[in-house]
Amino acid sequence: MAGSTFGQLFSVTNFGESHGPAIGCVIDGCPPGLSLSVDEIQPELDRRRPGTSRHVTQRQETDQVEILSGVFEGKTTGTPIALLIRNQDQRSSDYGNIAVQFRPGHADYTYWHKYGIRDYRGGGRSSARMTAPMVAAGAVAKKWLREKFGTQIMGCMTALGDVPIPFQSWDDVSQNPFFAANNDVVPELEAYMDNLRRDGDSVGARLMVAATNVPVGLGAPLFDKLDADIAYAMMGVNAVKGVEMGDGFDVVAQKGSYHGDAMPPSGFQSNHAGGVLGGISSGQPVVVHVAIKPTSSIRVPRESMDIHGQAATVETFGRHDPCVGIRATPILEAMLALVLMDHVLLHRAQNADVHVDTPILDMDSGV
Amino acid sequence: MAGSTFGQLFSVTNFGESHGPAIGCVIDGCPPGLSLSVDEIQPELDRRRPGTSRHVTQRQETDQVEILSGVFEGKTTGTPIALLIRNQDQRSSDYGNIAVQFRPGHADYTYWHKYGIRDYRGGGRSSARMTAPMVAAGAVAKKWLREKFGTQIMGCMTALGDVPIPFQSWDDVSQNPFFAANNDVVPELEAYMDNLRRDGDSVGARLMVAATNVPVGLGAPLFDKLDADIAYAMMGVNAVKGVEMGDGFDVVAQKGSYHGDAMPPSGFQSNHAGGVLGGISSGQPVVVHVAIKPTSSIRVPRESMDIHGQAATVETFGRHDPCVGIRATPILEAMLALVLMDHVLLHRAQNADVHVDTPILDMDSGV
Amino acid sequence: MAGSTFGQLFSVTNFGESHGPAIGCVIDGCPPGLSLSVDEIQPELDRRRPGTSRHVTQRQETDQVEILSGVFEGKTTGTPIALLIRNQDQRSSDYGNIAVQFRPGHADYTYWHKYGIRDYRGGGRSSARMTAPMVAAGAVAKKWLREKFGTQIMGCMTALGDVPIPFQSWDDVSQNPFFAANNDVVPELEAYMDNLRRDGDSVGARLMVAATNVPVGLGAPLFDKLDADIAYAMMGVNAVKGVEMGDGFDVVAQKGSYHGDAMPPSGFQSNHAGGVLGGISSGQPVVVHVAIKPTSSIRVPRESMDIHGQAATVETFGRHDPCVGIRATPILEAMLALVLMDHVLLHRAQNADVHVDTPILDMDSGV
Amino acid sequence: MAGSTFGQLFSVTNFGESHGPAIGCVIDGCPPGLSLSVDEIQPELDRRRPGTSRHVTQRQETDQVEILSGVFEGKTTGTPIALLIRNQDQRSSDYGNIAVQFRPGHADYTYWHKYGIRDYRGGGRSSARMTAPMVAAGAVAKKWLREKFGTQIMGCMTALGDVPIPFQSWDDVSQNPFFAANNDVVPELEAYMDNLRRDGDSVGARLMVAATNVPVGLGAPLFDKLDADIAYAMMGVNAVKGVEMGDGFDVVAQKGSYHGDAMPPSGFQSNHAGGVLGGISSGQPVVVHVAIKPTSSIRVPRESMDIHGQAATVETFGRHDPCVGIRATPILEAMLALVLMDHVLLHRAQNADVHVDTPILDMDSGV
Repeated sequence: MAGSTFGQLFSVTNFGESHGPAIGCVIDGCPPGLSLSVDEIQPELDRRRPGTSRHVTQRQETDQVEILSGVFEGKTTGTPIALLIRNQDQRSSDYGNIAVQFRPGHADYTYWHKYGIRDYRGGGRSSARMTAPMVAAGAVAKKWLREKFGTQIMGCMTALGDVPIPFQSWDDVSQNPFFAANNDVVPELEAYMDNLRRDGDSVGARLMVAATNVPVGLGAPLFDKLDADIAYAMMGVNAVKGVEMGDGFDVVAQKGSYHGDAMPPSGFQSNHAGGVLGGISSGQPVVVHVAIKPTSSIRVPRESMDIHGQAATVETFGRHDPCVGIRATPILEAMLALVLMDHVLLHRAQNADVHVDTPILDMDSGV
Repeated sequence: MAGSTFGQLFSVTNFGESHGPAIGCVIDGCPPGLSLSVDEIQPELDRRRPGTSRHVTQRQETDQVEILSGVFEGKTTGTPIALLIRNQDQRSSDYGNIAVQFRPGHADYTYWHKYGIRDYRGGGRSSARMTAPMVAAGAVAKKWLREKFGTQIMGCMTALGDVPIPFQSWDDVSQNPFFAANNDVVPELEAYMDNLRRDGDSVGARLMVAATNVPVGLGAPLFDKLDADIAYAMMGVNAVKGVEMGDGFDVVAQKGSYHGDAMPPSGFQSNHAGGVLGGISSGQPVVVHVAIKPTSSIRVPRESMDIHGQAATVETFGRHDPCVGIRATPILEAMLALVLMDHVLLHRAQNADVHVDTPILDMDSGV
Repeated sequence: MAGSTFGQLFSVTNFGESHGPAIGCVIDGCPPGLSLSVDEIQPELDRRRPGTSRHVTQRQETDQVEILSGVFEGKTTGTPIALLIRNQDQRSSDYGNIAVQFRPGHADYTYWHKYGIRDYRGGGRSSARMTAPMVAAGAVAKKWLREKFGTQIMGCMTALGDVPIPFQSWDDVSQNPFFAANNDVVPELEAYMDNLRRDGDSVGARLMVAATNVPVGLGAPLFDKLDADIAYAMMGVNAVKGVEMGDGFDVVAQKGSYHGDAMPPSGFQSNHAGGVLGGISSGQPVVVHVAIKPTSSIRVPRESMDIHGQAATVETFGRHDPCVGIRATPILEAMLALVLMDHVLLHRAQNADVHVDTPILDMDSGV
Repeated sequence: MAGSTFGQLFSVTNFGESHGPAIGCVIDGCPPGLSLSVDEIQPELDRRRPGTSRHVTQRQETDQVEILSGVFEGKTTGTPIALLIRNQDQRSSDYGNIAVQFRPGHADYTYWHKYGIRDYRGGGRSSARMTAPMVAAGAVAKKWLREKFGTQIMGCMTALGDVPIPFQSWDDVSQNPFFAANNDVVPELEAYMDNLRRDGDSVGARLMVAATNVPVGLGAPLFDKLDADIAYAMMGVNAVKGVEMGDGFDVVAQKGSYHGDAMPPSGFQSNHAGGVLGGISSGQPVVVHVAIKPTSSIRVPRESMDIHGQAATVETFGRHDPCVGIRATPILEAMLALVLMDHVLLHRAQNADVHVDTPILDMDSGV
């Protein structure tokens, strides 16, 4: 495959560019009989869309989704579900010098070298706007998993730049523009962002995404392990530079006697593993941490070159997210949902029986 | 695919169990005309094999590889290359109670739930022994990449437990049993391991793997990005819990003005990106960091259950690596080679022209 | 994959239903730099669309295609090309009793059993209308192959029911509504069809599709042989029940001394092989014959059952093609183009060099 | 994939050359818990192996298979099953001039052009010997399908050259060296073959393969239709030039009122469809017809060229099948089994429930 299809059995083929006529996706392999309408997809898109606070890009997109196929009388038919989102607010004039210059840290340079041609408007295909169709597809997967197994998928920001965001409650996440699971830290985050915008700079972020009530047995060793596919999904999201399962890099300094989650008949007593053992889900909550780099479109001038190999100083104006991590939570949730969905179908193919096992931790204690 | 094939166009299908008759793989898609013999594969296997120092498992395996197909008169023919390694030192009697008990932190539990049956001897399919065929396949990829583009792939351990191993020189790596790029720290590592073995415990490790002279343009967005496929490959290696590209989790606290690697016409001036921009190789060295968890087969007794759901105290005797990270360097190198190889072929399919671009950093300064 | 994607490297993901809002496809893997516009796709769609003569369905669809992505400033960018066709003339009221009855010979019964739900309007997903996006995608492949290698892809009807259509000239094909390469037989075909419509019955057809200037070396044994993939492509077209390469079923009675095409240095002297030897293109014209069954939507009453398992007599009214073979020529051409395109990219991945070899027959003598 | 893997979820990766050290395959995705031993695979290999009558090649191969992995205590574990067959009777000296000359009708020419190098000994990778591992893999699929659904897969020769073999009884098939379902015609076939060998020529054949008790609902439109995948599987077998489902090319002259199989509640009343409607199995027997071309390795001299482009007269001595169709029955059965197996798993992934429907014809009347 040429790279625009995600998933083997619940597969999502993504298309579109930031400033082209439309973006969208085709979901192939959705089980028949799921009740589905736009009303169940749109809210997830609304969580991700731009222009909702002063801390994100001011581009105005309603991201209104249309279902073109695969749903009949309110239910999925097992045939491809095509989802279409028209682009609306393309101010291509903003991107004048990006056409001929390479932003340091941006895909400008590599797209140019790979294809010999690129749609530079708004980053074209490399724009984070391409995640919108994945959020829409993820909404379908989330719904199916929730109805079938009670699976819950949640995410939050755990650090913005060098400001840590200690976990307080999942309830807080929807109450602030940062997807912070801690309302108390919000004023500090707002001040941080206001300073950053004033400087014309950008910053990274750290996010967590987790799932509970995950069926035991998901994952297809040797290579399509659940954690391998999660790492693939997460690292493939724009700007992600690091992925951890469970304790992640902390395992380096851990002893085996500490790391291995004790599992008496009453259930797992900890979750250092992050829900995956040997590449297969254990029934513990699946816990993933992700590092997101600072946006490369900033006002601060930087040394670079143009498409003719000549020296250039790049300053990027126009509308950009100073921290792409802020809108990334719904994206990571969607990607985790898509991986889990695909693995349920894969597991069902070979093993027929899929179930949620009893000895699982509850989410808040287990994460 | 059911999960035992790695790669799309240079694809490696892996088979075998730790204590079965043999392990091996089939490489499909190798370009014709590469000169190849056992002598070019065996040295990589020897770097990985057990029993070479007191710090690794004492299982004796020569890991002698046989080429069954795909090579004619010393050259690859473009047809599948099957590689076979017979298992020799199977002491299955060592594994008595593993048959009915689940080791905390081990794949015992999840394999049992996934398949309803498992070859428990030596961990069966979940054993790190399954990486040997990948090292063999990686040797083929390494050779082709080196001959075609001058690509060099190197790895080293950067931390053992809480002992950091500061990078000194790639030359040191082959001179100590830890793949440490710093001979001075070796006595400390040996003492650390001796203590650990005495305690019957295990520990994690941190490794780096890197490639220079990587052609620019590798990676297939939106999903088969080079870094996404690297994350998939690395997280799929036994015991890996975290993967970073370039600066990895450090990007969280970085500003965009710092993170974006300046790229005047003379070449990249830093490598925070780790060689990948927008999911496509930039020509900078590809740099990956990996966290490896402590082995779950330890003598320290732990609380667990058996296959009947009854409480059990697990103590694992027999031959095990107290730090699987020690032998992981050649494995990570092989996986990186396989990803790069696959992406060269993918890129060549769509874009025909593949080349190493001029403005690249040298390895020692760039990493 | 769940079945709606065709091709590995030049892959086309199809979506839509006969009476849904829209049909279309996403082409992933198109090489960058191909000049492309709607004007180059629409003519192929016009050759296939309904309502163009009294011998085909009278459904009125302009099949106007919109390019949603993947083309920038008139050239392909290497990113997915999404093509959209809105449905216009859905008279769903025509299909009342099809909702609950199974037409003998139709997919009604199997879709119902496979999915437990089906969009019965106009055959839903099983409608031949789903071939329109393939014709559009095929136009892109045709153009690239023509520009790159001078490859020509042509098809014609060779029998309508029991009326044979002797090959006279490719020029005739566009001059009659049957895609007959023989204008002289057209009056007989028209009379045949008029009788058939009067009887409310349908009939089968035989078609040929061929390609010249096919690069030598296409095909990926052991399984993705060029002829195997052609057979897959053709048998997958609605109503196809037989596929032949070259002499096809005539080879049963042939001797080896006759069948093997002599190949002195001046070139192949015959083409019994149909352009493929050992699953790999030889440079001879690729020649394929296809059998298409009679439409199952006919007015003649037949014995069947309904979705409740009760006996039913089925008579189908509404708008239907009495011979789906009449509009099938552009579809088969498109499918052949897609297979060839995919195999050029596959071959290029492994072998880098692709060329049209000199000793090839010209089309008219070789077929 | 590079072409040596067959199947998506029950996937078989084939390796080896006619005169290399070994041939074999890796089956990935076999459900766990199937009881399996060499004794259940070997009999199928024995049906196909050479040297069993004077009418086939006299090469002596016992084709003894070894199971290298995936089976533990007599049961499949869900992990890859590697099967190994050592080559024994390689008389490479027989093949002297094949090294530099191209046999008309043979893969010599195309392999040379595709890869620029080829193992010419015994046809190398293009040899029909490569079907042996598929027969072994097919034995596993056959067993699983039989145990799960009572599926029976049978094949027979229906014409040898211009001698038709009218179907009499499945019982006859194992009683003569031609896999003829009619013992009475055997003397005529023997005389025909004796003449053919005397002439140093070869001839084609026609075969039928069928399956009963096929679950309803198998097939994944739009492209991975059951009949499309069967056509792919069959056309990919060495020397096959035509594939028909059910009535095949006879449908061209059929009327819809005749072709559509009436389906009152008591069951299908005919089987013109060959068991597939709309690309999905209907529960009718699946019936496939195949045309096999005459072998290209014959003693009759023919005009050709050598690898330097010089004129050459080719006469092939050594051991060859004068009619490869004679040994093809077990191969076609295996390929049909593999397709059905793969589609059961695919269907189970999306639809969970798989069953054999009641209204099916019995085999002898239905074919």
